[in-house]
Amino acid sequence: MIEIQVELGDRAYPIWIGAGLLRDRALVRRAVPARQILVVSNQTVAPLYAPTLLSHFDDRSVEQVILEDGEAYKTLGSFERVMEGLLRARFERGCCVVALGGGVVGDLAGFAAACYQRGVDFVQIPTTLLAQVDSSVGGKTAVNHPLGKNMIGAFHQPRAVITDLDTLRTLPARELSAGLAEIIKYGLIDDPMFFGWLEEHMEALVAREVAVMAQAIERSCRDKARIVAMDERESGVRALLNLGHTFGHGIEHALGYGTWLHGEAVAAGMAMACRLSVAASLMSEADAERALALIRRAGLPIHPPVGVATEDLLSAMKIDKKNKDGRIRLVLLKGCGGAFLTENYPEDAFMAELATREES
Amino acid sequence: MIEIQVELGDRAYPIWIGAGLLRDRALVRRAVPARQILVVSNQTVAPLYAPTLLSHFDDRSVEQVILEDGEAYKTLGSFERVMEGLLRARFERGCCVVALGGGVVGDLAGFAAACYQRGVDFVQIPTTLLAQVDSSVGGKTAVNHPLGKNMIGAFHQPRAVITDLDTLRTLPARELSAGLAEIIKYGLIDDPMFFGWLEEHMEALVAREVAVMAQAIERSCRDKARIVAMDERESGVRALLNLGHTFGHGIEHALGYGTWLHGEAVAAGMAMACRLSVAASLMSEADAERALALIRRAGLPIHPPVGVATEDLLSAMKIDKKNKDGRIRLVLLKGCGGAFLTENYPEDAFMAELATREES
Repeated sequence: MIEIQVELGDRAYPIWIGAGLLRDRALVRRAVPARQILVVSNQTVAPLYAPTLLSHFDDRSVEQVILEDGEAYKTLGSFERVMEGLLRARFERGCCVVALGGGVVGDLAGFAAACYQRGVDFVQIPTTLLAQVDSSVGGKTAVNHPLGKNMIGAFHQPRAVITDLDTLRTLPARELSAGLAEIIKYGLIDDPMFFGWLEEHMEALVAREVAVMAQAIERSCRDKARIVAMDERESGVRALLNLGHTFGHGIEHALGYGTWLHGEAVAAGMAMACRLSVAASLMSEADAERALALIRRAGLPIHPPVGVATEDLLSAMKIDKKNKDGRIRLVLLKGCGGAFLTENYPEDAFMAELATREES
Repeated sequence: MIEIQVELGDRAYPIWIGAGLLRDRALVRRAVPARQILVVSNQTVAPLYAPTLLSHFDDRSVEQVILEDGEAYKTLGSFERVMEGLLRARFERGCCVVALGGGVVGDLAGFAAACYQRGVDFVQIPTTLLAQVDSSVGGKTAVNHPLGKNMIGAFHQPRAVITDLDTLRTLPARELSAGLAEIIKYGLIDDPMFFGWLEEHMEALVAREVAVMAQAIERSCRDKARIVAMDERESGVRALLNLGHTFGHGIEHALGYGTWLHGEAVAAGMAMACRLSVAASLMSEADAERALALIRRAGLPIHPPVGVATEDLLSAMKIDKKNKDGRIRLVLLKGCGGAFLTENYPEDAFMAELATREES
């Protein structure tokens, strides 16, 4: 088992990564010592893993809220369902909310934990690769609103994260690729050595080789934890984690949440950022080609999908937390491993990116 | 003008208290430097004070969300209305939410500011005595749920509080009394000197003498700020601020929010705590008499109202953030100025308090 400590002062917490962790009664009970436990999961994940998890809590007071699966359910309505679960059970401030599922479940359950009685404990058991390398680090919790993604939320750190690699066995191939998008992102932001390693191991990752996967997840979590520790509330360097996300959120919003997976939209967004960086003379064509090739090898798109209107993309991108004084700010690249935030980029190349479509 | 600095490290903020502050353009603009401003108010307060406030922001981008008046509107539904106001205006992370109104507006707008984009600036302009001495200090924000009061919320400190004493002129007498309940509370908790001062000045307070009122508000804010600074997240001493509130919340919940004012319910709750403290041999009868007399002189009740069922009171009190392992914890008194949290009290006297009713 690998243990990573996310260093955030009195909000520091461990991430445990390994195969079979969900079956480890002692570990699970150490992560969740509370007497009152609310498990939040969805209809896809709960049948697979909830019985094992709940078996460790046979002497506790346990409730469950099982949501429908998908980004479309990351709403204030679902948030209210979790609140009702907590209130009906009359759970006290010492209770713990456990998120069993992917990023949607984690973000939603974390936001509920942040707000119930102004903050209760929260433990994450991420079951998708994307959640394991992204939402499990950093304490960002949120729900979507029809007018914008992740616009309603809180910073709330978990007390522990349990990443059981066995859960990846049941993950659909598209979801695996979506997770690989965020992994590639860490290489592109500021870890060229990791980027090179990914070029060597992409086939092993797509084939879900456990030892290789564990290394990729560990390195991703360490990269993200280092950035978050420098900037917990996203006032500076943390914005770099948004590489590909401004375009990506635009795609998700214009297309309707849940049509493309978040990681797929981010992959296309990273590719757009690469090409725009070339157009801005920041990145060499050769580096951009390397990045695009790696994204493709992970089974991911490099353009927005057919059927999305350019004006919808642009409109959706104007609602973004990084924007200042109305100008869309983007994370661009000075090579593979050199991300930075800027509002200076050639407008024509930017609009050309919004107008180009993925071939199906 | 009086200035109190609430000491909370990098979340420290000033409270300004004085007559005519809302007309002070320089002061208001210093408190709210943001380019994008959302004013949250209600239908009673907005017509009285919004025009003056908005006149200072003639060069800013300003939106308003005007709620219906009353505790019944401190809901997730209203929270969503504020979120929609922010999202429709496409306000960015640098925006500011300004709460113009009493405790309901402040708690709701503060919670919205805490959650919009995971936290934006927030300025309070409390227009009721209760809000001026209570919700303006401490950063507690929340909405109610049909299953419990203030159960959904966040800790979010304002960047400034502007208390304009002129707003008290338009305050209904019942609301003034409700505010006096919280003022008396500070004396009872740990400030016997203030308690004695209140015994001397209660008539002047009821008559709204500005200089006396300013002193009472200042002392109340200082008392509360001192306690909050010791315990921002309510893990210890801050629970003492709940004197009268466990009973009070029970009354409000059993009666239906908005029937009695929050301060009225707290007044009855403080009286109940006094008598229970006498029954527990913690407080002398003479001290309890002094407290009850002061509450009465402020125009406030000392028992729950006729029409509330004892079992409903008890049931509502069981949902309380202070409770631990199912036992109702109460703030009781060793004399006027000696509050402490306990779960040890005579059950029969406790039940007798729940069963006694205010004569109408």
